[in-house]
Amino acid sequence: MRTTVSWQAEGPATTLRRTPLKRRDLRPDDLAIRVDYCGVCHTDLHAVRSREDGRPLVPGHEFTGVVTETGSEVSGVTGFAVGDAVAVGNIVDSCGTCAMCRAGQENFCHAFPTLTYGGVDRHDGSTTQGGYSREYVVRSRFAYPLPSVLDPAAAAPLLCAGVTVWEPLHALAVGPGVRVAVAGLGGLGHLAVKIAVALGAETSVISRSPDKADDARRLGAHDVIVSTDPEDMAAARDRFDVVIDTIAIPHDLGPYLRLVALDGTLSHLGHLGPVTLETTDLLIGRKRLSSAGSGGRPATAAMLTFCAEHGITADIELLPSARVNEALDRLGRNDVRYRFVLDLSDLD
Amino acid sequence: MRTTVSWQAEGPATTLRRTPLKRRDLRPDDLAIRVDYCGVCHTDLHAVRSREDGRPLVPGHEFTGVVTETGSEVSGVTGFAVGDAVAVGNIVDSCGTCAMCRAGQENFCHAFPTLTYGGVDRHDGSTTQGGYSREYVVRSRFAYPLPSVLDPAAAAPLLCAGVTVWEPLHALAVGPGVRVAVAGLGGLGHLAVKIAVALGAETSVISRSPDKADDARRLGAHDVIVSTDPEDMAAARDRFDVVIDTIAIPHDLGPYLRLVALDGTLSHLGHLGPVTLETTDLLIGRKRLSSAGSGGRPATAAMLTFCAEHGITADIELLPSARVNEALDRLGRNDVRYRFVLDLSDLD
Repeated sequence: MRTTVSWQAEGPATTLRRTPLKRRDLRPDDLAIRVDYCGVCHTDLHAVRSREDGRPLVPGHEFTGVVTETGSEVSGVTGFAVGDAVAVGNIVDSCGTCAMCRAGQENFCHAFPTLTYGGVDRHDGSTTQGGYSREYVVRSRFAYPLPSVLDPAAAAPLLCAGVTVWEPLHALAVGPGVRVAVAGLGGLGHLAVKIAVALGAETSVISRSPDKADDARRLGAHDVIVSTDPEDMAAARDRFDVVIDTIAIPHDLGPYLRLVALDGTLSHLGHLGPVTLETTDLLIGRKRLSSAGSGGRPATAAMLTFCAEHGITADIELLPSARVNEALDRLGRNDVRYRFVLDLSDLD
Repeated sequence: MRTTVSWQAEGPATTLRRTPLKRRDLRPDDLAIRVDYCGVCHTDLHAVRSREDGRPLVPGHEFTGVVTETGSEVSGVTGFAVGDAVAVGNIVDSCGTCAMCRAGQENFCHAFPTLTYGGVDRHDGSTTQGGYSREYVVRSRFAYPLPSVLDPAAAAPLLCAGVTVWEPLHALAVGPGVRVAVAGLGGLGHLAVKIAVALGAETSVISRSPDKADDARRLGAHDVIVSTDPEDMAAARDRFDVVIDTIAIPHDLGPYLRLVALDGTLSHLGHLGPVTLETTDLLIGRKRLSSAGSGGRPATAAMLTFCAEHGITADIELLPSARVNEALDRLGRNDVRYRFVLDLSDLD
C-alpha cells in the first residue's frame, strides 16, 4: 500500500480533518496521480452531512493533477506517461461489458459504475476514497488527458458539473437555432450557460432574483427571466426547446415545464430524489421531462476537447485545502460564485 | 334552436336516460351532422360517474355521421356538402390565434380548446353536449372528411383514441428501425399497436397477463412482455426507443421507464393526474417522460388518411345506443375488446 494525506471525516464527524490515507499499489492498468486541484460539489456536502455509518469518508470527485507513476501495462494501452496533466471525474470503473458500457455510457453501467468515493472497488471490494487528498490511484481508462490550454484549477469542475450539463445538451442536439434556458445559476448552471452559448444556442437564464442578471449576461446569456415575476414567466410560456434545470433543492417543476416548447425537454439535473408532477403539464405541448448525470468516457473526452477549443472553464474560488470546511459551510449557504476548488499543494 | 334526442345524465344520476336535447341553429361556418356511431371512451365513464354539479351531461366525443345541413358560408370555405361522411373528435373549437393554434396544435390551445361535451361554447357561453345524440352541430373546421374505405362504426374511435396515440408516435418519429412497446391493451393500446406496426416499427406489447399474447399478435405485435414476470421485464431492460403507456389506472412508472432505451421516451397517455417518479429512473439512461392527448387538426386529418391507406380501424363491439349504460358498466370492469361503439339509429 501507498500512503498519502487527505481531508477525511471519521466517526460521527461532519467536518473534515487532515488524516493519512492508504492508496492501493498500482495494478497494471493504474495511474498514480498527484492531485493538485479538486472541486467542491454539492454531492460532497451531502455525503459529509448525511453520514450515518461512521465509516471514514474522503470526498472529492472532480480533480486535476499530474501522473506520477504508471502501471506496467499503461504506456502501451493508453499513452499516459509520468508528468502528463490529467483529470478524473466521478466514476472510476464500470463493468465494461453491459449494453451501456458498450455504448460508451459507463455512467449508466447496468452493474453500477464505481464511484470515485464511497464506491466499491471491483477488484478488492474496498471502499473508494476521493480527491480531497494529495494522491489518487485510478484505472487509466477513467483518467482523461487535460488539455494544456485549460487552467487546471478552473478545469477541475468540468469533470463533474461540466460533463453533467454537457451530456444532456449534446443528447438534445443543442446548437444554433435551438432555444435554451438554464434554471439556477450555480456550479452546474453557470457551466450550462457557457457551454450552451459556445454551442451556438440562443441561451437564457431563469433566476429567482434579478440580481443575477448582470452575471448571467457576463457568462454569455442573451436574456434573463425572473422566476418570481409572473409577467416574465407568462411571457416565456412555451418558449424554450430545452430547459436545463440545475436548481439544487426540491421544487415544483410545473412553472418550468410551462416554459418548454412543443415537443421540447426539461432536463432536471440539480436535485435527485422523487419528483411529482401533473400529467397535464407534460400532455399540453407533448413536453418531455428527462434527467442526466455524470458522463461516459467518450462524452467526457469530447467535453474536454470542446471546452479547450472554446476556452471554457468554471468560474471558481480557489482555496487552500486546509479551508475545506469553510468551503463546505459556504456551499451549504449557496455563498459561492460558482464553484470552490481546493488547492491540495498545502498537503505536502 | 333545433331539437334532437340524446342519452343524458341529469341531477344526481349516474346512468343515462333518453332525453330530448336542444342544438343551436347553424352559424355560417357550422355543419349539422346526423350522428350514426359514437365510441365510448374512458373519459365518458369518468364524466358520468364523477358528476357533482347536477347539470345535464351528454357524453360522447368520437363519432362519425353524415352532414345533413351546412351553414351559409360552408361550401366555399371547406368543401363540405350535405350527404358527406364526416367524423368529429374531442375538440370542437379553439382560439385560432395563439402559438399552439397557429402551429396546428389546437388541442393545446393556450385559451383551452372547446371540448366536444362539457366545454364552453366560445360564442354563446353555453355548455357543449356530446355525441351520444342523434344530431351534433359543429364548426366545420373541427369536422373531418371520413374516408369512404373506413367502416364508419369502427372508425369512430379513431377520433379520440386513435389520434391520441397517433400524435406521440408521429412526434417521436416512430417508423422502420424504431423499437416500440405498447403497455396496456385497451382502446388506446390496441390502436397504438396497429398504427405502430403500420408505421413499420418493431412493435411489442407489455401486458399484465399472458392471456393477451394471442390477441396482441393478431393485432400485429411482434413480441409480448408479461409485466408480472420479473424475468421478462429484466430481459427487456433498456430495449425500447418508445414506450406508449396506455394503462388507464394509476401505476408506478418505474418498471416501464426501465424498459426505455438510452435517450428514449415513455409517453404516458392512459391516466391523467399527478405522477410521482424517482429522478434516477430518468437519469440512468437520460430517459424521457412525456404525454399527449387528443390531436390538432392537421394531425387528425393525417391520421385518418394514414388509417385509410392501411385499413386501420378499431376492434369494436357495436351496441344499439339504448344499451349505453350496459356499455359504461362493462367498460368500468374492463370487459371490452377493445372499444364499445354506440349505434345511434335507434334514436330515430
